[in-house]
Amino acid sequence: MSELKGACIIGQSGGPTSVINASAYGVIDAALKNPNITNVYGAEHGIVGVLNDRLFDMGQEDPAELELLKYTPSSALGSCRYKIADPDVDDTDYKRILEVFKKHDVRYFFYNGGNDSMDTCNKISKYMQKVGYECRVMGVPKTIDNDLFGTDHCPGFASAAKYIATSCMEVYQDARVYDKGMVCIIEIMGRHAGWLAGAAALASAYGAGPDLVYLPEVDFDMDKFLADVDRIYKEKNNVMVAVSEGIHYADGSFVSEAKTSATDGFGHAQLGGLAAMLAEVVKEKTGAKVRGIELSLLQRCGAHLASETDIEESYMSGKAAVENATAGLTDKMVGFERTYVDGKYVCKTKLFNLTDVANTEKKVPLEWITPDHSNVTKDFVDYALPLIQGEPNLPKQDSLPRFAKLKKVLAK
Amino acid sequence: MSELKGACIIGQSGGPTSVINASAYGVIDAALKNPNITNVYGAEHGIVGVLNDRLFDMGQEDPAELELLKYTPSSALGSCRYKIADPDVDDTDYKRILEVFKKHDVRYFFYNGGNDSMDTCNKISKYMQKVGYECRVMGVPKTIDNDLFGTDHCPGFASAAKYIATSCMEVYQDARVYDKGMVCIIEIMGRHAGWLAGAAALASAYGAGPDLVYLPEVDFDMDKFLADVDRIYKEKNNVMVAVSEGIHYADGSFVSEAKTSATDGFGHAQLGGLAAMLAEVVKEKTGAKVRGIELSLLQRCGAHLASETDIEESYMSGKAAVENATAGLTDKMVGFERTYVDGKYVCKTKLFNLTDVANTEKKVPLEWITPDHSNVTKDFVDYALPLIQGEPNLPKQDSLPRFAKLKKVLAK
Repeated sequence: MSELKGACIIGQSGGPTSVINASAYGVIDAALKNPNITNVYGAEHGIVGVLNDRLFDMGQEDPAELELLKYTPSSALGSCRYKIADPDVDDTDYKRILEVFKKHDVRYFFYNGGNDSMDTCNKISKYMQKVGYECRVMGVPKTIDNDLFGTDHCPGFASAAKYIATSCMEVYQDARVYDKGMVCIIEIMGRHAGWLAGAAALASAYGAGPDLVYLPEVDFDMDKFLADVDRIYKEKNNVMVAVSEGIHYADGSFVSEAKTSATDGFGHAQLGGLAAMLAEVVKEKTGAKVRGIELSLLQRCGAHLASETDIEESYMSGKAAVENATAGLTDKMVGFERTYVDGKYVCKTKLFNLTDVANTEKKVPLEWITPDHSNVTKDFVDYALPLIQGEPNLPKQDSLPRFAKLKKVLAK
Repeated sequence: MSELKGACIIGQSGGPTSVINASAYGVIDAALKNPNITNVYGAEHGIVGVLNDRLFDMGQEDPAELELLKYTPSSALGSCRYKIADPDVDDTDYKRILEVFKKHDVRYFFYNGGNDSMDTCNKISKYMQKVGYECRVMGVPKTIDNDLFGTDHCPGFASAAKYIATSCMEVYQDARVYDKGMVCIIEIMGRHAGWLAGAAALASAYGAGPDLVYLPEVDFDMDKFLADVDRIYKEKNNVMVAVSEGIHYADGSFVSEAKTSATDGFGHAQLGGLAAMLAEVVKEKTGAKVRGIELSLLQRCGAHLASETDIEESYMSGKAAVENATAGLTDKMVGFERTYVDGKYVCKTKLFNLTDVANTEKKVPLEWITPDHSNVTKDFVDYALPLIQGEPNLPKQDSLPRFAKLKKVLAK
């Protein structure tokens, strides 16, 4: 394909991860070095920053600070949850984006996000093609939820998984320390896919994790759950449970939002979320001492427990986006393909069509969930374990994290 | 003083910490090497294990596994919350303890815990003296709450403080990522003393921590709190708040348990604890997007973020207990004294009388709390910062923690 010279924009969107900035750094680093890219702009708050013409000139940043992005959690450029309209219904945003692209001679657009973000950049790309403005568009994936179509796994998942597994192993030690038994329920992110809750089973594989794991891929049955807990409590005196926030009853209603007979009297104000609610139900039914723990934001920003594999792969996906776009490709998302060489995990980038990826969710295969729906199988553990390997050499200042400090100079 | 030969018992009590096992290892390691100590026993679940004659023979453990105790969170021997009676009221337990001590020729008793545990070993010591059974008793401190009398600080505090500060710095990145603002409230342990909540200010000292910190040393005023949050929200669009679980109103009632007009409608079932409740109050009053995060057990078992200084000092306190007891001392707790040599923090052990330590709480000095009661001062930060220094070389297996595996062979 023809050579295309011009500026590029990198934007970040959706819920952040521990390593989304490593992907952004992959884009920025490769773009700053690429002779076809004249300027590298970071959009403030994703597409919202494009609409507002709030673009940071990444060339003015200190290279050492940019490199710290590899170890800086959350979206350093700022994120958004802006849902762009269907261009056939309302093309106002698209006209404005075109205007900003033209103003800065933007010929490359890299968007770093999950399902919705892939949909956004797909729509923008199609619009630019329709109006005849040449701009190559690449999706750079991120999501702790690990639910993007096609790719073997998503940047961000492994670091969250490592945080979850490590935390479970530690809480396991703590939650069985007394002479009296206890039931401990850990609530893990994942509204529709159970990859993260399943990661708690990594802890169990090393002898210190949940006895029970419930995923949203199958229906949740409160009576079955209580019977599971009761059985293990009687057998071992201590029970650890991992639940996905998205577990739901057979009718599709979320357990976190439902009023059951068991939750009557407190189901009306689920301030503490699912773990607190289930802990209360277990306490009422079994009389056991209980504790509900919600890993909340900690699991998606716990960069101090990031997987070095995840950081390297995230960087690689950003870099590959630039290389493929400048080589002439467009409308792709950079995903991953896994192979094993002499039994050793190897990950390579692979391109997927944005059209295929946009708004499709990849769930945990049902065959990786145990027949009684209360755990994941060894296949799940074998899948996840290579991804969490490696300890990053974390930059610190006085034993606390040293995150990137960007100047964020606005482009004129 | 006279030489005393015999066995020793080490017991652990109260809420565990990330480094209580480092203290226990200090005792066990020093005792196994000491010629005056004939056997080293670990009591299962603290004093409950003594009462039940459930003593593990630590000499039968693999030395390499014992050393892993330095990096293994929670109480490896098991803990208890057993409150021993006043011997003048009921001496049943004491007679039983004497019986077990005599059976195993126990002449040294090391008890690893907080305020209540120091009271327990003080009572046992006084009883043994009264009945003329020679047994030297040493308290080995631990508490994330940092509230033991006399000592500069307590083993366990620094690692929890480091966990809290690091987590706050990470959540700070995440909780301000969107184009819409947010109020994030982090609930931190500490029922009566605010040392741990204060540690969140370490994050602020490095530019990424709470704007507001509320401690239980002063009365909490809900209206003042809401005005504080509202002011910063209007100014910065994002607010981070750290609260001690023990904050209370002027009448002494805990905020977490109180029903105020602002909490009506949900104050009746505080499943999610204080952070969730305050988040709801802020949401109602300001309309801001809010999130409450409870650090829960994670903060006291997060050994992967332990302070190497804390680990070394914990080990040192256990070792010093053995050295001082075999040298003839009894009825002491091994605490710490801080000095600065050429501006560099230096910590030495110092003995305190158990009678003075038992049941006394040390709180954050009022002069370390800002006049408007919404933060801690630089003096607090200067006090805490040296304690969290140093990164332990954590033993790992497949990038997950490798904790000590003890055989726990019961003594005959």
